[in-house]
Amino acid sequence: MRASVLSDWLAQRLDRGSTQPVYRQLHRLLQQAILSRELPAGARVPSSRLLAAELAIARNTVTQVYEQLVLEGYVISTTGRGTYVADTSPDEIVGANEPGSLGLDQTRRAIAGGLPGLTQAAPRIAPPAAERTAAPAAGTAASLSAPATPGATHASREAVRALSARGARLIAGAGVSKRQGGAFMPGVPDVSRFPSRVWTRLHNKYWRSLRPDLLTYAPGGGLALLRHVLADYLRTARSVRCSPEQIIITTGIHQSVDLAVRLLTDSGDVIWTEDPCYWGLRSVLQVSGLNPRPIAVDGEGINPSAEDFAVPPKLILVTPSHQYPLGMVMSLARRRMLLEYARQHQCWIIEDDYDSEFRYGSRPLASLQGLDTAGQVIYVGSFGKTLFPGLRVGYLVAPEGLAESFATASAELYREGQLLQQAVLAEFIAEGHFTSHIRKMRGLYGQRRQALLDAAASRYGEALPAMGGDAGLHVVMQLPEGCDDRAVAEAALARNIVVRPLSGYYAARARAASGLLIGYACVPDEEIAPAFDTLGEAIDATLPLFA
Amino acid sequence: MRASVLSDWLAQRLDRGSTQPVYRQLHRLLQQAILSRELPAGARVPSSRLLAAELAIARNTVTQVYEQLVLEGYVISTTGRGTYVADTSPDEIVGANEPGSLGLDQTRRAIAGGLPGLTQAAPRIAPPAAERTAAPAAGTAASLSAPATPGATHASREAVRALSARGARLIAGAGVSKRQGGAFMPGVPDVSRFPSRVWTRLHNKYWRSLRPDLLTYAPGGGLALLRHVLADYLRTARSVRCSPEQIIITTGIHQSVDLAVRLLTDSGDVIWTEDPCYWGLRSVLQVSGLNPRPIAVDGEGINPSAEDFAVPPKLILVTPSHQYPLGMVMSLARRRMLLEYARQHQCWIIEDDYDSEFRYGSRPLASLQGLDTAGQVIYVGSFGKTLFPGLRVGYLVAPEGLAESFATASAELYREGQLLQQAVLAEFIAEGHFTSHIRKMRGLYGQRRQALLDAAASRYGEALPAMGGDAGLHVVMQLPEGCDDRAVAEAALARNIVVRPLSGYYAARARAASGLLIGYACVPDEEIAPAFDTLGEAIDATLPLFA
Repeated sequence: MRASVLSDWLAQRLDRGSTQPVYRQLHRLLQQAILSRELPAGARVPSSRLLAAELAIARNTVTQVYEQLVLEGYVISTTGRGTYVADTSPDEIVGANEPGSLGLDQTRRAIAGGLPGLTQAAPRIAPPAAERTAAPAAGTAASLSAPATPGATHASREAVRALSARGARLIAGAGVSKRQGGAFMPGVPDVSRFPSRVWTRLHNKYWRSLRPDLLTYAPGGGLALLRHVLADYLRTARSVRCSPEQIIITTGIHQSVDLAVRLLTDSGDVIWTEDPCYWGLRSVLQVSGLNPRPIAVDGEGINPSAEDFAVPPKLILVTPSHQYPLGMVMSLARRRMLLEYARQHQCWIIEDDYDSEFRYGSRPLASLQGLDTAGQVIYVGSFGKTLFPGLRVGYLVAPEGLAESFATASAELYREGQLLQQAVLAEFIAEGHFTSHIRKMRGLYGQRRQALLDAAASRYGEALPAMGGDAGLHVVMQLPEGCDDRAVAEAALARNIVVRPLSGYYAARARAASGLLIGYACVPDEEIAPAFDTLGEAIDATLPLFA
Repeated sequence: MRASVLSDWLAQRLDRGSTQPVYRQLHRLLQQAILSRELPAGARVPSSRLLAAELAIARNTVTQVYEQLVLEGYVISTTGRGTYVADTSPDEIVGANEPGSLGLDQTRRAIAGGLPGLTQAAPRIAPPAAERTAAPAAGTAASLSAPATPGATHASREAVRALSARGARLIAGAGVSKRQGGAFMPGVPDVSRFPSRVWTRLHNKYWRSLRPDLLTYAPGGGLALLRHVLADYLRTARSVRCSPEQIIITTGIHQSVDLAVRLLTDSGDVIWTEDPCYWGLRSVLQVSGLNPRPIAVDGEGINPSAEDFAVPPKLILVTPSHQYPLGMVMSLARRRMLLEYARQHQCWIIEDDYDSEFRYGSRPLASLQGLDTAGQVIYVGSFGKTLFPGLRVGYLVAPEGLAESFATASAELYREGQLLQQAVLAEFIAEGHFTSHIRKMRGLYGQRRQALLDAAASRYGEALPAMGGDAGLHVVMQLPEGCDDRAVAEAALARNIVVRPLSGYYAARARAASGLLIGYACVPDEEIAPAFDTLGEAIDATLPLFA
């Protein structure tokens, strides 16, 4: 090809008014021309001096572009012979339909010799004629004359659009909401009261000292200081029996459960979950290839039937302190039954203690883990509700003999870091800010809970009873049997009020009760009654009973 | 039981000099006595007034302990009849060996009636005699007379200690190191040069404004601002074709790959990995039930054989810009072959672009994703090497039509947060600090790399050649074939020098080359030569060649 043809083609397309540097434009254009075979393999490109002169740009720019193209394998530069377009046609896919045949790649590799992969391959010189391509012959101006369509080589972008079976199931069953706050989003604490000054002071202190050991990867299990502080807290506040070594810092309950099921279960294993339960953990279990068996709950917590007992699961996932989402406490008799059954059948139990700090009118209840004499309970909790969800710090208490395996697996699978934040959190707890923040928020949430219960009682009296309000961050308002709680939730959302339909938390349709999860924690006191009125309008408009 | 017997027993055990409050001690002791059946079901506990007087403690303390025990189900309080120890013996495990039999639980549930789980169960009054237990009869002082062994009920703590098959495989194959820095830890950047003042200034700015939307859960995909800034960066610096919507913020390459394989593959699917490759990702794939097929690499990158081609994988995981750990660049011809094969066989490709910013002597190479015309490449990268590992921010570029599914799945599976940190990072990039930090570190690492190569050359000349040094944070020093590189690494560790044996990165033993990964990035310039001397001692002491 004559240099002037290429120069003209390039000159037409270089946009000197663009914010994109000329270097980048020229590089992109030459790549395009080579990939689309408008500049075919074997073609000689003009010298940098010539091209620079013809385009009236700095020679250095052209040189740099050529160097980059050499590195990327688009062109080949040979001393004395000039610069040529490389053969960039794909390597042959060898024997895809002829298993066992020896192809070009093997031959090439055999020639390369030595340690496989330990020699940098020399770019191949393209054959003089474009043997392996059907491109137009080199040097014809015609192939460059068609107007350029930016991104034309990508016009036929037809992707393979199939999710896998587990991926499709995950998306179809996803329970995550697009909203993360506002009245009455369940499970979201009030983050506006967080003691940000204390937090920032500690944060700045650690950044000022700039300790490299806090900025690199976390050792398995997390920061030793936080594990110590947390072990003390859990022993005192939650009756958890543990040493600091048993504590594994995670990014929250999702990761804690993921870690436990990956270490303790295999694909296909049966897992008991409470029915209803938290949608997020059901997704985590399903995507790990497990076989969740939803178990009914009654006023004393999980309540397996004879059929359930007949097939011992590998793992049991429960919320003993405050059943999610219904709110009842697992009775002591039920706790002891569960531990005994787990001992007999060598099942693991995960105790999800997600919001036990917020119990109104009594102290928090002791953990199931503290009753466990056989080391079968894995206790999981998080700071998402007590401090703020975005913090992403949770913890897991591993059984005594498995602590080191859990620590290793967590480093291997997640390669965690965030040690500076862990140091800040440890000091925040050790200085007493954590317990005083919980105390403050407990008072605040207690008021809001009461305001909500009052609003509900004054509008509906006994007709729509609320339950689960003596702890946590939400109440469940029961709807009459057979009501379409999803329709109510949609009607509420149309009025900018977020509630979650209770029926969506059940795995077994036949069991699904109708109701609404109403979160009060993140709603300022004075907004609760008006927001409930709006919710009431949605209920009344949707339920025939109140029409 | 006579009140005085219980009082004496308690008085002996209350430690008034302890830092533990009397409330907590009394609570724990009564729980212990009930669980061990020393205080049997049906026994009446003394009135709070009487017990307080006998123990000489505040009556209010006793009342509070009793209230807590009522809540926890240990005792039952009836108006007029006093307080009794509840029947806390385990619920019966019904019909575990008789599938289909209807047991006590069902009966009880049927009696409870109404919506299952929507009534708070009344604590059961224990039967007058301990019908269901073999405990000593109520009221005998004998059962309380034995000296208490603290934690005696937990003495027989024999745990079920079995990891699952996949858990055991994970632990056995774990590649994670206990060390996270120092000479010559590969893959660890120098975090001491991080511009912490700028970072802290931005951090404080966001904390001062205390925006609740930055402290709650992340929307699927992460903070919009960061996704925008990152799309711009990736388009310009890495030739990635993407819109901000295709960017999914993750906690790093581990989570990016986890997300992609959970959405796009099913258990049992064949995955191509380069051999050698990064141990961490191999673990992530294995634990997801996938079937990794290690594919040889040569000087042009991944190099599948005819046998490999014959069974198309569901997904191909490659490091085109800088093969990990060997360091070669995937040739353009190989890239196009891979894309064409993936298109024909509908395979997904994950492009792991883990440290492409650090290329010495040339600009970073364009991404594979930018060549993809069929939307089959998932591009993953992270800030772990460019800023600091502990940051835990990575990103994934989803194929066009799947962006929303990826965003939903990431919120559903990981429930991420850290939006305030994402805002800080977005502003850090937008203000230009990111590119200037990379420029600075590239200069610094380039010097260190040269110091290392000089030290190696001056000690060993051509005998132990180094490769992969033109990019990244480590070089690979080849050892003579058949050398035990693990023994060398152990000898080095004994001298407090961390290097990783190359053979450990191979899945196929027959293919494993002998060598050492030597990381220079986190070693100050002046320490490189002395540290290499120490490494040299370890090599010379271990390899017969140099003995």
